[in-house]
Amino acid sequence: MNQRISLLKDKMSTNNIDGMIVENPLNIKYLTGLDAEGILLISKKEDVFITDARYIESVNNTITIGDNLTICDLADLTEDDYLNFFKECNRVYFEEDYVTYKEYHNIIRKYNIQETVEANHIIEKMREQKDSEELANIEKACNITDSCFLHLQDFIKVGMTEKQIAFEIKKFFIENGADGEAFDTIVASGSNSSMPHAIPTDKKIENGDPVLIDFGAKYKGYCADMTRTIFVGSCSREAENLYNFVLQTQENAFTRYRDGANAKDIAGFVQHEFYNHKFNLVHALGHGVGLYIHERPVISEKSNDILKEKMVVTNEPGIYINGLFGIRIEDTLLINKLNATNLTKSNKNLLILNN
Amino acid sequence: MNQRISLLKDKMSTNNIDGMIVENPLNIKYLTGLDAEGILLISKKEDVFITDARYIESVNNTITIGDNLTICDLADLTEDDYLNFFKECNRVYFEEDYVTYKEYHNIIRKYNIQETVEANHIIEKMREQKDSEELANIEKACNITDSCFLHLQDFIKVGMTEKQIAFEIKKFFIENGADGEAFDTIVASGSNSSMPHAIPTDKKIENGDPVLIDFGAKYKGYCADMTRTIFVGSCSREAENLYNFVLQTQENAFTRYRDGANAKDIAGFVQHEFYNHKFNLVHALGHGVGLYIHERPVISEKSNDILKEKMVVTNEPGIYINGLFGIRIEDTLLINKLNATNLTKSNKNLLILNN
Repeated sequence: MNQRISLLKDKMSTNNIDGMIVENPLNIKYLTGLDAEGILLISKKEDVFITDARYIESVNNTITIGDNLTICDLADLTEDDYLNFFKECNRVYFEEDYVTYKEYHNIIRKYNIQETVEANHIIEKMREQKDSEELANIEKACNITDSCFLHLQDFIKVGMTEKQIAFEIKKFFIENGADGEAFDTIVASGSNSSMPHAIPTDKKIENGDPVLIDFGAKYKGYCADMTRTIFVGSCSREAENLYNFVLQTQENAFTRYRDGANAKDIAGFVQHEFYNHKFNLVHALGHGVGLYIHERPVISEKSNDILKEKMVVTNEPGIYINGLFGIRIEDTLLINKLNATNLTKSNKNLLILNN
Repeated sequence: MNQRISLLKDKMSTNNIDGMIVENPLNIKYLTGLDAEGILLISKKEDVFITDARYIESVNNTITIGDNLTICDLADLTEDDYLNFFKECNRVYFEEDYVTYKEYHNIIRKYNIQETVEANHIIEKMREQKDSEELANIEKACNITDSCFLHLQDFIKVGMTEKQIAFEIKKFFIENGADGEAFDTIVASGSNSSMPHAIPTDKKIENGDPVLIDFGAKYKGYCADMTRTIFVGSCSREAENLYNFVLQTQENAFTRYRDGANAKDIAGFVQHEFYNHKFNLVHALGHGVGLYIHERPVISEKSNDILKEKMVVTNEPGIYINGLFGIRIEDTLLINKLNATNLTKSNKNLLILNN
């Protein structure tokens, strides 16, 4: 059996759980390495991956004997097969935060399960702390993102549209060995930057514009997440002051990221700093990063999460002046025993491009 | 009130439903035009879109007074606000096929709803038949896809990798006015083409390879879907015969697509043809296309769907010889009263590139 499934079963057995239905594709990928659509059934008897004819061949090419995983074609399964999967199990986990209301009722009807139990993110919690292979992939994704930012400093010019810049990022990622983007890139210039989640438009970059770029490569399924706000041609005194305030707050917050730190305290520190300057932290300060761009833990004032070493999280304070402009500075960082390490290492000093 | 919400309310009232919680972002986009994260609450009293600070500004820039939609910031809402939204409603729809098990229980706890009722895809059913604006967007997406295929006939050369071709498609789409890809492009060459859902690899195109390309542009949120299987340098007699058989079956199936046709009969015809030649239709023959790449109806032997005019669906028979090669030919088509119109119009005759 593979190590991750074996560890999951250990955790399940301490909770008196005999089986689990895994449907979230990222959890399936984490446990098995498979990218195919399907359902993973974990039970005392055997572990089964049910997929369909579109994927059978590639799944069989990926799985090794050591995985000890039975591969089934959906089309070959009978009603009795479903009734038998969990025959020897009493309590079976399901993913209450992934499975739809309708699918839950399908599960109840299809499998002969004595008691379904909410899994309470058991696999997502395993995914919080990264092993060395996962870390290497995230570091590579961050490196490609850093290289891309260097490239953009030459590339971005007055007259170019936000969409053109977003496309250049996508292109750079693919040409430099990434799977692609970890999420839809944000390129927001001028007053568009005051919208924290702006979609790139046909607006052209003008002299004096701030350009907020939130982007990250994906490498072997693992994400990077970085934001830089740069200026083109010139930068107003007001924007410069705000930039330096956000940067200082981001760097001060960074010193608080470490094993054992309360997520809410770090976010509270930033909110307090902002509040003293009559600003407001309108979104979370950060989030976990891994196979998914937004995963556990959450770093916000409402969070009860505690940081642990080997977690990978973001640090992304931002201030947005409605209709005028916005500044956000974000790094992806690794939590260590006593401190943290920025995995995105791009320059953060105020940058005014004159291309 | 906008027309689509108004029509939805008419349909709801015939089922004695007073309210609806809409969480599926494509349903929200369909009803309101909004791309922002959030929840749409439809009730007798008022229609409310709840979003957060990241989107408030862009949402307010998109909505017009005619929409008669109240925009709320999540952070400003109290427990009482939630209890009051559906105060005057007895029966409220929720999306049982989108809302997770956990979210359903949140809904029950948060809102003061007398009776929740499964919406049974009420909005997805409205989305099946396209209006003229939607059709224009899908046609544009199909046109860009056709132009891309023409471009590929010059571009693809021996020695190029599958990934390079997939990237060229992405690039072509963006440079030609599309939002991007409607789905992850499949480029599968040589024996990889026998996997219906192959992911592009670093494998290089070799002389004599079939290259199966499943791709489609997205335009203003609307998808196109087309597959062509071409050959590079040469084509074996066996592959040529199989190609012509798949093509003939695809064209014969096409003549059966029309208003009133049973989806299962069309798929059954293809399965019968395949079976007579000792092959098997291992995936659905087709699916609806619109804001989402796979939407209602389903065209398979198990489907109970009946085609209606103004539906946009695919016609995509494929035969896959394990470990050797595969052939799939797919068009996106519009259902008319008496026949259908192919919206993807690229050449389907056997094509052997000699670049």
